[in-house]
Amino acid sequence: MADNIPVLSQRAMAMPASPIRKLVPHADAAKERGIKVYHLNIGQPDIPTPDSFWNAVKNYDTDVLAYGHSQGLPSYRKKLAKYYQKVGYDVQPDNIVVTTAGSEAIIFCMMALCSPGEELVVPEPFYTNYNGFAVMSSVHLVPITCKAEDGFHLPPKEEIAKLITDKTRGIVYCSPNNPTGAVFTRDELQGLADLAREHNLFLMADEVYREFIYEGEHTSVFELEGIDQQAIILDSISKRYSACGARVGCIVTRNNELVEKLIRFGQARLCPPTLEQAGAEAALDEGDEYFEETMNEYKKRRDVVYDILMQIPDVVCLKPSGAFYIMAKLPVDNADAFAQWMLTDFSYENATTMIAPGSGFYATPNVGLDEARIAYVLNVDDLRKAMETLKLGIEAYNRR
Amino acid sequence: MADNIPVLSQRAMAMPASPIRKLVPHADAAKERGIKVYHLNIGQPDIPTPDSFWNAVKNYDTDVLAYGHSQGLPSYRKKLAKYYQKVGYDVQPDNIVVTTAGSEAIIFCMMALCSPGEELVVPEPFYTNYNGFAVMSSVHLVPITCKAEDGFHLPPKEEIAKLITDKTRGIVYCSPNNPTGAVFTRDELQGLADLAREHNLFLMADEVYREFIYEGEHTSVFELEGIDQQAIILDSISKRYSACGARVGCIVTRNNELVEKLIRFGQARLCPPTLEQAGAEAALDEGDEYFEETMNEYKKRRDVVYDILMQIPDVVCLKPSGAFYIMAKLPVDNADAFAQWMLTDFSYENATTMIAPGSGFYATPNVGLDEARIAYVLNVDDLRKAMETLKLGIEAYNRR
Repeated sequence: MADNIPVLSQRAMAMPASPIRKLVPHADAAKERGIKVYHLNIGQPDIPTPDSFWNAVKNYDTDVLAYGHSQGLPSYRKKLAKYYQKVGYDVQPDNIVVTTAGSEAIIFCMMALCSPGEELVVPEPFYTNYNGFAVMSSVHLVPITCKAEDGFHLPPKEEIAKLITDKTRGIVYCSPNNPTGAVFTRDELQGLADLAREHNLFLMADEVYREFIYEGEHTSVFELEGIDQQAIILDSISKRYSACGARVGCIVTRNNELVEKLIRFGQARLCPPTLEQAGAEAALDEGDEYFEETMNEYKKRRDVVYDILMQIPDVVCLKPSGAFYIMAKLPVDNADAFAQWMLTDFSYENATTMIAPGSGFYATPNVGLDEARIAYVLNVDDLRKAMETLKLGIEAYNRR
Repeated sequence: MADNIPVLSQRAMAMPASPIRKLVPHADAAKERGIKVYHLNIGQPDIPTPDSFWNAVKNYDTDVLAYGHSQGLPSYRKKLAKYYQKVGYDVQPDNIVVTTAGSEAIIFCMMALCSPGEELVVPEPFYTNYNGFAVMSSVHLVPITCKAEDGFHLPPKEEIAKLITDKTRGIVYCSPNNPTGAVFTRDELQGLADLAREHNLFLMADEVYREFIYEGEHTSVFELEGIDQQAIILDSISKRYSACGARVGCIVTRNNELVEKLIRFGQARLCPPTLEQAGAEAALDEGDEYFEETMNEYKKRRDVVYDILMQIPDVVCLKPSGAFYIMAKLPVDNADAFAQWMLTDFSYENATTMIAPGSGFYATPNVGLDEARIAYVLNVDDLRKAMETLKLGIEAYNRR
């Protein structure tokens, strides 16, 4: 008797493959051929996780690794509120819901703001997993297209207003931005806040790269005018303390009803990981010098990447001032095909460079086809080699 | 200018409060009055997490706590497959998707099987958080009502068949069962498998209490006939290794297409916690004596709870043979009111007992109103005192 195979849900069939990870089999094959692959495709920092984190985890002293509070460990929320107060926002421990990384923060908020079929407006290119979360929660993402020529800054407020319908429940943005590195200005963000106020929407800000600023300053959604009950911070320790594997993030809002409902989502899944919250709590003791050192390193890397990019004819890219990514329009017809070719057909001094094709960061079809994201997560020497290899690769690709 | 407060989603408003945790403020108030509260309301075991787990976490040696593989650490999946082979199921590492605890396993499967509005059939009373996950994923749970008089075993297959509609995508059950302690027999489960086969449905089995069996034997969904591509195991280390705060679970299926889509859900949230997977991997080295010792302890506890329950006139409850819960019909008109009264109005020798009212474990309205779940997660001495206190409480409540 043949096996029955029930069909999967429409939702499962609609789940996108990760554009960042889909080239991995080609990278593996290149490595099997003995070629070194410079990974500029993923946002995995090489900065050590602080000792304070490790010590707290290793000295965690209990017999039973028990459930923690669904809202997050009280001692962690207390100290986290102090961190936000120190960076200048009025946040109390009860305004915080600790989540299993930024991923859960985003999906909880999507679900709390939107029922199936409702809409969130989001500047594109955007963090590619927003797509996956939207499919999982049956939310429709409505993109605001930003352009390489404008340094991926926002279009005028009037353009954005045209995207708001009676199904729109919020606007979600990321600044400093993944994948572009753009840091939205206070004026740009106040424009979004004004739209949120005029249309009674939530304004969700993914601020996980808050400290990663090389020029200018970061403006938090909590500093904007007139949206006290509408502002939501999405946050994570993954990049701040180079602890991507810890899976600790949070949602911050002064809207008590939202907190109450988020706690219900939290209760359903019981709690975020306990040990890593202890580590995250300890990492909050890191002084300004920790961030200064890290930021100086990233700034140097950004300059290396940008300088070499600018030596490639016809690259379009304004110098980004935050996060650790650069999105650039490359002089190739199709960045997906080019990125794959770099892995399958090209090497220089027995090495090649892996980048993330741009199309996966857009919701609008056929946009960003000649763009790619470069994550500067290698040390300066390796990064220089990786970028020189990319430059030679582009030349070779266009000479084929 | 008054604050705008945008409304939350219908989904957020529909999220149920945890019936297990909703009495917590009354328990806190009792404690403030100096009353000791025996917590039989939550499934937090007091058994120590094994040293093997702690040692692996504390000796985890790396500078950067990096993202792990979205499907779970390969070394962990390899060893986990061996664990399943040892307990007798044909499982390969590629059949496993590691999740952030059993919670994520369930929600990923709900999403992969059902689009919004589609249905899963589930025996009730059931693990209360299934309700929350169903609201989050906009899935409709269709209950099969099981009764205290039958030891919460399944009704005849023909009764269950009547619940299947053209929107039904699967059947989900838990055995050994939370909240009832019932262990479904091979015949009962083969009945579900036959239904799954006849109606081309998935059959999802929450088997997190696999080792917690005091009489009879556990039958896995992977041992049932004719549903090779339809069988799904939902699993977790929370109870098995008393590591509830670790947040490590998994989904096991021989259906490759399902694995592929589950990995996409997994890629969206990047990875489960890394450190705890290392701990979970080490815990798999625990020998049979670890489980024997733990199970002997739980069996003693079950006997204490059951014996004292049987001394209370008009309690309805068959002796359950698994997990660490007993669900019983109590001689009170409303178990919600009674459970609250135990915290607000009753104490014996300056102590009271907290139980989980039954209604929250049912999807059918107004069923289980006189039932409660008792989790035997205290040592035998405390458990005896807690149960004697409960017995005296019931007498006093009915004399009011």
